Amino acid sequence: MPQDAPSDAVHPRDARPGDDFHVFDTTLRDGAQREGINLSVADKLTIARHLDDFGVGFIEGGWPGANPRDTEFFQRALAEIDFRHAQLVAFGATRRPGVAAADDPQVVALAESGAPVVTLVAKSHDRHVELALRTTREENLAMVRDTVAHLRGLGRRVFVDCEHFFDGHRADPAYATQVVRTAHEAGADVVVLCDTNGGMLPGDVQAVVRAVLADTGARLGVHAQDDTGCAVANTLAAVDAGATHVQCTANGYGERVGNANLFPVVAALELKYGRRVLPEGALAEMTRISHAVAEVVNLTPSTHQPYVGTSAFAHKAGLHASAIKVDPDLYQHIDPEQVGNSMRMLVSDMAGRASVELKGRELGYDLSGDRDLVGRIVERVKEKELRGYTYEAADASFELLLRDEVHGGPDRRAERFFRLESWRAIVEDRPDGSHANEATVRLWAKGERVVATGEGNGPVNALDRALRVGLERIYPGLARLELVDYKVRILEGTHGTESTTRVLISTSDGAAEWSTVGVAENVIAASWQALEDAYTYGLLRAGATPGE
Amino acid sequence: MPQDAPSDAVHPRDARPGDDFHVFDTTLRDGAQREGINLSVADKLTIARHLDDFGVGFIEGGWPGANPRDTEFFQRALAEIDFRHAQLVAFGATRRPGVAAADDPQVVALAESGAPVVTLVAKSHDRHVELALRTTREENLAMVRDTVAHLRGLGRRVFVDCEHFFDGHRADPAYATQVVRTAHEAGADVVVLCDTNGGMLPGDVQAVVRAVLADTGARLGVHAQDDTGCAVANTLAAVDAGATHVQCTANGYGERVGNANLFPVVAALELKYGRRVLPEGALAEMTRISHAVAEVVNLTPSTHQPYVGTSAFAHKAGLHASAIKVDPDLYQHIDPEQVGNSMRMLVSDMAGRASVELKGRELGYDLSGDRDLVGRIVERVKEKELRGYTYEAADASFELLLRDEVHGGPDRRAERFFRLESWRAIVEDRPDGSHANEATVRLWAKGERVVATGEGNGPVNALDRALRVGLERIYPGLARLELVDYKVRILEGTHGTESTTRVLISTSDGAAEWSTVGVAENVIAASWQALEDAYTYGLLRAGATPGE
Repeated sequence: MPQDAPSDAVHPRDARPGDDFHVFDTTLRDGAQREGINLSVADKLTIARHLDDFGVGFIEGGWPGANPRDTEFFQRALAEIDFRHAQLVAFGATRRPGVAAADDPQVVALAESGAPVVTLVAKSHDRHVELALRTTREENLAMVRDTVAHLRGLGRRVFVDCEHFFDGHRADPAYATQVVRTAHEAGADVVVLCDTNGGMLPGDVQAVVRAVLADTGARLGVHAQDDTGCAVANTLAAVDAGATHVQCTANGYGERVGNANLFPVVAALELKYGRRVLPEGALAEMTRISHAVAEVVNLTPSTHQPYVGTSAFAHKAGLHASAIKVDPDLYQHIDPEQVGNSMRMLVSDMAGRASVELKGRELGYDLSGDRDLVGRIVERVKEKELRGYTYEAADASFELLLRDEVHGGPDRRAERFFRLESWRAIVEDRPDGSHANEATVRLWAKGERVVATGEGNGPVNALDRALRVGLERIYPGLARLELVDYKVRILEGTHGTESTTRVLISTSDGAAEWSTVGVAENVIAASWQALEDAYTYGLLRAGATPGE
Repeated sequence: MPQDAPSDAVHPRDARPGDDFHVFDTTLRDGAQREGINLSVADKLTIARHLDDFGVGFIEGGWPGANPRDTEFFQRALAEIDFRHAQLVAFGATRRPGVAAADDPQVVALAESGAPVVTLVAKSHDRHVELALRTTREENLAMVRDTVAHLRGLGRRVFVDCEHFFDGHRADPAYATQVVRTAHEAGADVVVLCDTNGGMLPGDVQAVVRAVLADTGARLGVHAQDDTGCAVANTLAAVDAGATHVQCTANGYGERVGNANLFPVVAALELKYGRRVLPEGALAEMTRISHAVAEVVNLTPSTHQPYVGTSAFAHKAGLHASAIKVDPDLYQHIDPEQVGNSMRMLVSDMAGRASVELKGRELGYDLSGDRDLVGRIVERVKEKELRGYTYEAADASFELLLRDEVHGGPDRRAERFFRLESWRAIVEDRPDGSHANEATVRLWAKGERVVATGEGNGPVNALDRALRVGLERIYPGLARLELVDYKVRILEGTHGTESTTRVLISTSDGAAEWSTVGVAENVIAASWQALEDAYTYGLLRAGATPGE
């Protein structure tokens, strides 16, 4: 049963979790089964480094012998990576029916991979033995026994993954338990109960793990899939019942819905159970590691992932905001810094003075002494949100609004880097089906009138290029800016193309990313506003001197 | 403890779950707190209709009186929606300290909303009473007692949400329990224990619910947030302990990480516990409802959501794929059709022959006799979906594609009503801040060359008007067509404005509404495609004679 971590817990500075609890990562093997993920050897090496940095105990790297990429990965990982925390694990199957383990090429490849640890997948569900493996229940037990003993004889540490264990235990508990006992007696260090189809709920898992532990005395692990949305809870339920080895994947990647997500599992164990499962200081790296792995697999990090999502400690409701000023702990289950994340206040029409002050503080503006100023900002935010702007998703536009009020005043805005005279965009569909997109901007920057034209694959892209061409000579820092995301939302969708359009743009300068918003009846005009804010904010960040 | 649903369970055809178990949806109130969601009144009405269709028992619509949009929503929902399953619920707070409930404008607004059910949020954590509410523990109890009694006296059914209950129960179990007892004794039908900060794990939840139930005898509900990744499991743990009311949101939308996701919660209750909580047949609509709500809030449906994600029953592993041919049940925890989803093999494609035949039959085309034709359609759909088209949300575009193949053939398409030569759109921002949008189309219709120009409040609107002006003389039926919705989505959002753009347009002729799709690098070009399909389909419906 979980308990609060003792707040005064003292751990020796260099303590590393020992072998009594295993954090076993299978991102590179089972996680790679996720739809849309396709990892190169280089990707796998990079992820392995991140996971080792994070401090997991075991990294399952793939199935050597089953495909050439995995074989190469093991060779290179063992040669190139100086693992500080993790041991590399090779995954494979028990020997084929009717063949000696030593003569099965797949088992030979496992031994030859050089990995010090091997995970063997074994059948434990009688129907799978008969229909998928097409062998007898007795031969299946012999396959487990022989393969474990063979690899142990070669000096490998062996874990056995019992596939479909929970379904198998429901169908024939005696046989499923017999597979665990066989693996244990043959020398497997851990027998892992797998919910391969992911249909279990925590109550099921807890009861089965408890029963198997009592029946066999084997060291047990758990491998949960998230098909019921309970993989994290199922993993913790197994730990509650005595499992001491958890198999997870970074960000929960995996087949179908995914696997148990490594990050909430280790966070719960460390912060809620008060159980040390990672090296000292590792948890504070969790948000960074999660996002880094997402980058490598080329998936946008989930903004709503527990603990590590950018929204995980974002507060919107005005009700909450006023109380958060009094005491942030009242509205957060943990201090976000414990997992390397941070609290964010979302400015929205639900929020009032308190959240504007907090947001200002976050951005480095102390607004608490100036009631008029805060009042003006709240009014401007309200008025703009009524027209369709949203500042919760456009921090940079909010900061520019704030800056206008702080450095400008009631009747004027802060000095900017350029002032628009006009722009024009032309999109032309030609008889041959191709398109021409051309934009012209006319603006003033540092007292100079600039007229520039750009072409692009769409009108906004053309405007972006025209603006860039026009300003680059005056503000060389612009060259680094890159538009990384572009979102369009039509507001009040009952008038077709006459609706209001909101555009959100994310821009990066390589070091940071910021979002800006524009709203207009017209998608191009809305995009222009968001672009203008994006460039202004980028120039502010670059330390350029303003001048219209 | 969950059990398998009896496979031979027989339910009376029109059976509806009674009042003994509440599926309570708070997408429109708590779900709307999610970062990036900003719902108009029209959005809220549409979502309420979907939720009622799905069969939830209660729909919490918002906080009337707290903001004008919510007040308007209640007026319109009660007037415009004929709820078949759900009751509308107004959310609000207990009266302010030191004021009679009848004199608190916020309580008055709740009563005046017209909603038959009211949820009152109440503090149950002593520190929140003191620091956030700034009143005494005794006054807080009086606030609960008075407000519940007042609204009960006005004939409302009252539920009480005990905010921060689990944290409060840890800090001072006697006081937290006293709040529940007070609400219960004052006439609240259900007292809902809220894990407002979302830090709980299933073991905590189960123990607390069990204790409070034993101490108070009140009917209990649960409201879980997903900050530990355990909201679904926490909700089920509360049910295991005796709660008979679950508060959830569609797709788990909600503040920070989100709320307990309605869909896996009801699926677990129906399919794993064998407990009837939705009307007959509702579960088979779950995937459709989930995606429809995502469309309204303009978030991409999560492909990896349990039960309803497009990847939820997608199989990639070769190991699985071969065994699935033997028996799909070996590799699926449920039959995906039970939740309106389907199995996908990732090597093969989404639009199989069978679904094209089925879809054709739905549209009045019998394709079963022509294997070549069906094969061609499948190939074309595959090729177009690969480029970003989606026919799931664009029935009219699919029917035009089908018609091209049926009436046209391998090398030519069916006769259309007009043929484009070229178009051009110009958007100009003028020095005075106003915008000019002008579009010109050049096309052929019934042998005539037509050149027409239109102006509008945006480039797509201008194109729409130009097309309309050009064609109206030749096809007078066009005048009735109206664009009623316009949606833009940027696909592959890692290249900023260089991404591919998908546009969906809904058009109405007063009697029916249809949707069309366009995809291009360029938002105007994508819009043009969707417009062209929209007008072509409208003319087909009007019985116009084609002629290019």
